[in-house]
Amino acid sequence: MFNFAYYNPTRIHFGKDTINEINSLVPSDARVMVLFGGSSAKKTGTLDEVNQALGNRFVVEFGGIEPNPTYETLMQAVEQVRELKIDFLLAVGGGSVIDGTKFVAAAAEFEGEPWDILTSWGGKVTKAMPFGTVLTLPATGSEMNCASVVTRKSLKAKLPFRNELVYPQFSILDPTKTFTLPERQLANGVVDAFVHITEQYLTYPVNAAVQDRFAEGLLQILIELGPKALAQPQDYDIRANLMWVATMALNGTIGTGVPHDWATHMIGHELTALYDIDHARTLAIVLPSLLRCTKTAKHEKLLQFADRVWHIQAGTEDERIEAAIANTQAFFEAMGIGTKLADYNLGKDDVEAVLKQLEDHGMVALGEHENIDLAMSRDILTLAI
Amino acid sequence: MFNFAYYNPTRIHFGKDTINEINSLVPSDARVMVLFGGSSAKKTGTLDEVNQALGNRFVVEFGGIEPNPTYETLMQAVEQVRELKIDFLLAVGGGSVIDGTKFVAAAAEFEGEPWDILTSWGGKVTKAMPFGTVLTLPATGSEMNCASVVTRKSLKAKLPFRNELVYPQFSILDPTKTFTLPERQLANGVVDAFVHITEQYLTYPVNAAVQDRFAEGLLQILIELGPKALAQPQDYDIRANLMWVATMALNGTIGTGVPHDWATHMIGHELTALYDIDHARTLAIVLPSLLRCTKTAKHEKLLQFADRVWHIQAGTEDERIEAAIANTQAFFEAMGIGTKLADYNLGKDDVEAVLKQLEDHGMVALGEHENIDLAMSRDILTLAI
Repeated sequence: MFNFAYYNPTRIHFGKDTINEINSLVPSDARVMVLFGGSSAKKTGTLDEVNQALGNRFVVEFGGIEPNPTYETLMQAVEQVRELKIDFLLAVGGGSVIDGTKFVAAAAEFEGEPWDILTSWGGKVTKAMPFGTVLTLPATGSEMNCASVVTRKSLKAKLPFRNELVYPQFSILDPTKTFTLPERQLANGVVDAFVHITEQYLTYPVNAAVQDRFAEGLLQILIELGPKALAQPQDYDIRANLMWVATMALNGTIGTGVPHDWATHMIGHELTALYDIDHARTLAIVLPSLLRCTKTAKHEKLLQFADRVWHIQAGTEDERIEAAIANTQAFFEAMGIGTKLADYNLGKDDVEAVLKQLEDHGMVALGEHENIDLAMSRDILTLAI
Repeated sequence: MFNFAYYNPTRIHFGKDTINEINSLVPSDARVMVLFGGSSAKKTGTLDEVNQALGNRFVVEFGGIEPNPTYETLMQAVEQVRELKIDFLLAVGGGSVIDGTKFVAAAAEFEGEPWDILTSWGGKVTKAMPFGTVLTLPATGSEMNCASVVTRKSLKAKLPFRNELVYPQFSILDPTKTFTLPERQLANGVVDAFVHITEQYLTYPVNAAVQDRFAEGLLQILIELGPKALAQPQDYDIRANLMWVATMALNGTIGTGVPHDWATHMIGHELTALYDIDHARTLAIVLPSLLRCTKTAKHEKLLQFADRVWHIQAGTEDERIEAAIANTQAFFEAMGIGTKLADYNLGKDDVEAVLKQLEDHGMVALGEHENIDLAMSRDILTLAI
């Protein structure tokens, strides 16, 4: 196992009717901005519940944060925060709203050009506003980590940052708040969580027994419950387990002390930036091809994945690995998510456009061995046509 | 899954040569008390390393914290803390030293009689000194939780307390520091961690998929690596994995949102208080008999335990459950730990003495259903003779 540092101070309140905990979690004299996305937070009544829990505090709402939150929109929130002397942020939504809120928390306190937060990968952040979250779409794990991804429309750039100062102070996870999710978003969440796990698991073995067993456990739960969630959309326990899996998938627990391979995300981000494809769908396109193109380097972990997650024991090693990848791809398809570029009307020319983006953003040495260069990214994307 | 709150702000530094992180973790102007147990912390050089990392800070050492830390000893530390205006504590040792340090942290700031900290189960703690830990004996998980157990010799009482204010600010987990452990302590640690897991897992099903899979993963690692650790005492990866399992076994991760059954610990504590038997050994005595006496109530989870942890698929349900319990008992014995009262020269009369203790301490409704009364405790202990 690699040496590691682990720290995660986010307080979780999980379960039915936990939104009212907000009242004891937000300082009573706070001036609060509630950030959210589209109209669903209002329609479902979640915003009302939040406002009720906030009681007599000064509250301003900031809606309209996009599915891939943009720098342009978020900077409007930063302006309002400064104007209205807001001192506490409350994100109500999924990963995009929470990621956006993290950026607002850091940008509002940032001296200089806030875009530098992104170009420094968060390294330049020295302070941030306190904030909490009310999660309505389990997927990204953003509710319990200190990472964020922001898109700058004018540059067609989607860049991540991370900094300990943007851990949420608290997150409210009420599975009943996910009952109103469209099937498409539910499926996206399952696939997003799945790929978060494989990116911390499908690398090379370093004898990290806990992280491996935990990753394998989470993957098995997604495989078992993902399709059931589509079939039984009002089942509390299924929703609750999927919600907690998505959080545990990216809160540091399975990722400490092991190599990571975020190539699928990095390539996927460019597909979203260029073509506005749902984040999770870009991952479903990239992952199977990436695993096939890197199966020599990932040989041992892919065999373990085949054995412990998919329970594949028959065949040669190569056959077991291919079966595990095929099962993974079939699982995404069973969740209603296309795994080919053609499913999104993209082809050979688009591959070149993505490569240009990767080059522009310096994404030329991806993967746990930093050997996924532009040529290999081309192979991966071509295989995914 | 039950509703739950989860919060764990302890910062972990895990791996080789991480003791020097102390320098950046302890305030540079802190007045530090280093608390430890016997002479091994000095002999192994760990104390020297800690002192070196603390540099020019004011440091006082407080040694002699017992394997079951006593109120009497700890109150001497509290006195010194007050006299010398100590403002940061650093525990160097295993669960006993860390538990003791938690008590000192709370007692030094406590107004009134500090024994009330124990009799109120920690509820009366309103502030506590900051402290960190350097773990040398993985077992109890105390390095990453806010619970503690203290023995008051004069009353022959061993009582637990917990309070969020006694989370360690940081814990240093360097697996190489466990290389010098005697075999007995290594075995104790494995069994202690194992029972911590079963006490949060072997109750009744509440559809908590993540907690179940994680618990099963940790148990499988202990079963695989425990005997290997005895056979290959200098293997870094084995030690590292056991260390991290013991921490994850009791840091809240597997225990949130599920029923608990701490009856094995509560009965075991009385065996330690009366006969000074190693904590882990008392658990090894109680658990197999407790599972046999409660196998109807725990039926479903015992079947799951047999299937997923021990991979027992043959036989009737009762046979599979008995095989899983027998395997568990054989695993403890394979770790060199006796599982019968007779192994410690105790018999029928001692059972009655333990029952008297349980009654005196109000331990008359234990277990996840609060139905382990004195009569059932007698059955459990009698079966363990």
